[in-house]
Amino acid sequence: MADDAPTRDLLALGRAARAAQRELAKAPTARKNEALHAMAAALREGCAAILAANDRDVGRASSAGRRGALLDRLKLDTPRLEAMALSVEDIAVLPDPVGATIAQWSRPNGLQISRVRVPIGVIAIIFESRPNVAADAGALCLKSGNAAILRGGSDSFETARAIVAALQRGIERSGLPPAAVQMVPTSGRESVGELLGGLAGTIDLIVPRGGKSLVTRVQNEARVPVLSHLEGVCHVYVHAAADAAKAIAICRNAKMRRTGVCGAAETILIDATAGADLLGEIVRTLIDAGCEVRGDADVRTVDPRVRAATEQDWATEYLDAIVAMRVVSGLDAAVDHVRRYGSQHTDAIVTEDTAAAERFLAEVDSAIVLHNASTQFADGGEFGFGAEIGIATGKLHARGPVGLEQLTTFKYKVRGTGQIRP
Amino acid sequence: MADDAPTRDLLALGRAARAAQRELAKAPTARKNEALHAMAAALREGCAAILAANDRDVGRASSAGRRGALLDRLKLDTPRLEAMALSVEDIAVLPDPVGATIAQWSRPNGLQISRVRVPIGVIAIIFESRPNVAADAGALCLKSGNAAILRGGSDSFETARAIVAALQRGIERSGLPPAAVQMVPTSGRESVGELLGGLAGTIDLIVPRGGKSLVTRVQNEARVPVLSHLEGVCHVYVHAAADAAKAIAICRNAKMRRTGVCGAAETILIDATAGADLLGEIVRTLIDAGCEVRGDADVRTVDPRVRAATEQDWATEYLDAIVAMRVVSGLDAAVDHVRRYGSQHTDAIVTEDTAAAERFLAEVDSAIVLHNASTQFADGGEFGFGAEIGIATGKLHARGPVGLEQLTTFKYKVRGTGQIRP
Repeated sequence: MADDAPTRDLLALGRAARAAQRELAKAPTARKNEALHAMAAALREGCAAILAANDRDVGRASSAGRRGALLDRLKLDTPRLEAMALSVEDIAVLPDPVGATIAQWSRPNGLQISRVRVPIGVIAIIFESRPNVAADAGALCLKSGNAAILRGGSDSFETARAIVAALQRGIERSGLPPAAVQMVPTSGRESVGELLGGLAGTIDLIVPRGGKSLVTRVQNEARVPVLSHLEGVCHVYVHAAADAAKAIAICRNAKMRRTGVCGAAETILIDATAGADLLGEIVRTLIDAGCEVRGDADVRTVDPRVRAATEQDWATEYLDAIVAMRVVSGLDAAVDHVRRYGSQHTDAIVTEDTAAAERFLAEVDSAIVLHNASTQFADGGEFGFGAEIGIATGKLHARGPVGLEQLTTFKYKVRGTGQIRP
Repeated sequence: MADDAPTRDLLALGRAARAAQRELAKAPTARKNEALHAMAAALREGCAAILAANDRDVGRASSAGRRGALLDRLKLDTPRLEAMALSVEDIAVLPDPVGATIAQWSRPNGLQISRVRVPIGVIAIIFESRPNVAADAGALCLKSGNAAILRGGSDSFETARAIVAALQRGIERSGLPPAAVQMVPTSGRESVGELLGGLAGTIDLIVPRGGKSLVTRVQNEARVPVLSHLEGVCHVYVHAAADAAKAIAICRNAKMRRTGVCGAAETILIDATAGADLLGEIVRTLIDAGCEVRGDADVRTVDPRVRAATEQDWATEYLDAIVAMRVVSGLDAAVDHVRRYGSQHTDAIVTEDTAAAERFLAEVDSAIVLHNASTQFADGGEFGFGAEIGIATGKLHARGPVGLEQLTTFKYKVRGTGQIRP
């Protein structure tokens, strides 16, 4: 249980965040955008220091035996840093959600009620290796009027610290409080426990971005609300009435376009009546593209290179060039499989039968359900939200891509002329 | 920590709820409304059994020494039972939120994205003495496509059980699964722990409705999302430019209309420049209405009957005919007081100065902020939402009155024609 009393350092961090957030909440859009441009400029100016810090992180990680994909996610270079700065500038261009009136109505007694978007407050973001999360999350929080407390993984600790130092210089230059974006000054596991305890009421929301063990720990121990970004065990279901060309293209893209994103397909379900030809073509296409296929007995009959899938495979997020494939008997069996093994992230059906598609979209209880499109569209940018913190897999508050709007809450403003309740 | 493995009974309850919820999610509005009418009819038919159960509960509670207000909240009679049935019928008339398209847009690549309201799933509602919560919560959950697991307090245990039995008879008659509304078959404290653990993933949301100790326990121990209904330490701030007649009427109504509701004012802040006359009039009005006034030194000077307020008073939800009063110097001091002692529930300003009002509405970070109106309007019915579960005081998902719409979440349906992501 996260009942550690917070240390003085982290408590001070939380209080500084709270105070900074009050200023941010009142800041006009122009001032916040100015800060975002200054943050991007400071990232560019700080390039040498950030890359030097990153070199040290990469060196330590590689001595510690980290392998390819992980090291690659950690590694920065000038183009990646420039992409980070551009992404911060892109957030400046997005509409400011704060202050928008979502709904308004009046009551028979003359009360005028409006529902207005407001920032959530102080948001703690706990992330693992990718250091660009620091810049994206800091910028998204600032634009949406929230203060950010970032807690990076130990692999990317120095890099994230250098990035946050640059962001703070930019924020300061714009006249907003630099404590709007802060970083936990240690990468020890105990600091996570302190954040989960809420730092004496200074944290309003925790966003864990990382593997299953991190997210599960946060869900179990947090005493403040959590916006979970859990794994994506995403499915493509090739229905009996699927168009073969679409099915092949979508399966290949959903699995292989980028295997390391949470919207990548991990399991392909193919209807028994879709035919052995189509099944064989999908299997060959994937194997030819460099994908390992693990299948049930029916899938293995079409190609000897298919390995046997175990029960474990159906529930695994590979984030790699591996796919689990299963033949299912009809839409209900497909929906049952997704319900049993999926993670309520993103699932797709390929079919020319609109009624079947609508039934799949209705009955699969995932944040994103698609008809005749790749699961790799599960992305804030592809939805038109601009940048995102990630894809939320919980059911409360925000589901799917978490962009600026999802980082806000609302309040009711009620304007009267002296009304009392009878 | 709520890591008790669930007992077989409660696990079976959770699984039955999950299965029933799948049926409910697909049920058309007409079928759900039919069920609600049948539930109301079954409450009326079950009147004798429910009142007999209630007599036993009241008898036990009064032997256990429960006092007036508590006993009164527990006690049912024929008119109260009829009001309960009418309230269930009112919910049948409200629009069905499930399936509504909240937003839709298309992307340059031709993808059609829509954001559609869906039920949350299985909702556990933990409540204390008032047994009518069972009928209201069960009916609201059913209409919004959610299965309800109710866990009442020990005082109202038999009454709630009789009410739920009637509701289930009604649901069954309409052809929907009676497990759509279930009650935990024990009132032991350990059953709360099991619910907080999520019953092996069968619970999607926990709604605690009760005192601070219940809500705090739920927030600390729950491993699933919580929609908290915490206390209402609500304020009325009488600004320098307040209209005296409005200020007096609003203070009196906000405090005394009903003292036991969460939207009742607990503290009145009066601006130093509003004048001793107005202060004196408000104090006298409240005392004459039977209210005990506890004030700071400035308030005590205007009337010898005012008792001294302690630090504790500013943070207390009396739910009784007691009010804390304090003289503050200006709007900022008022906002600071609310920020420090309030519970982010409902707060009001009385003023004829629109700019001051707008600043108060913007800077007080509560679910509901009012200008020139009584805090007693903090109510789903008064907002036009129909029935409500209560007023949520957290910042995530739903703030303020929790009605049908707030008991839903959404999913994204994406319709394509074979799009793959470049």
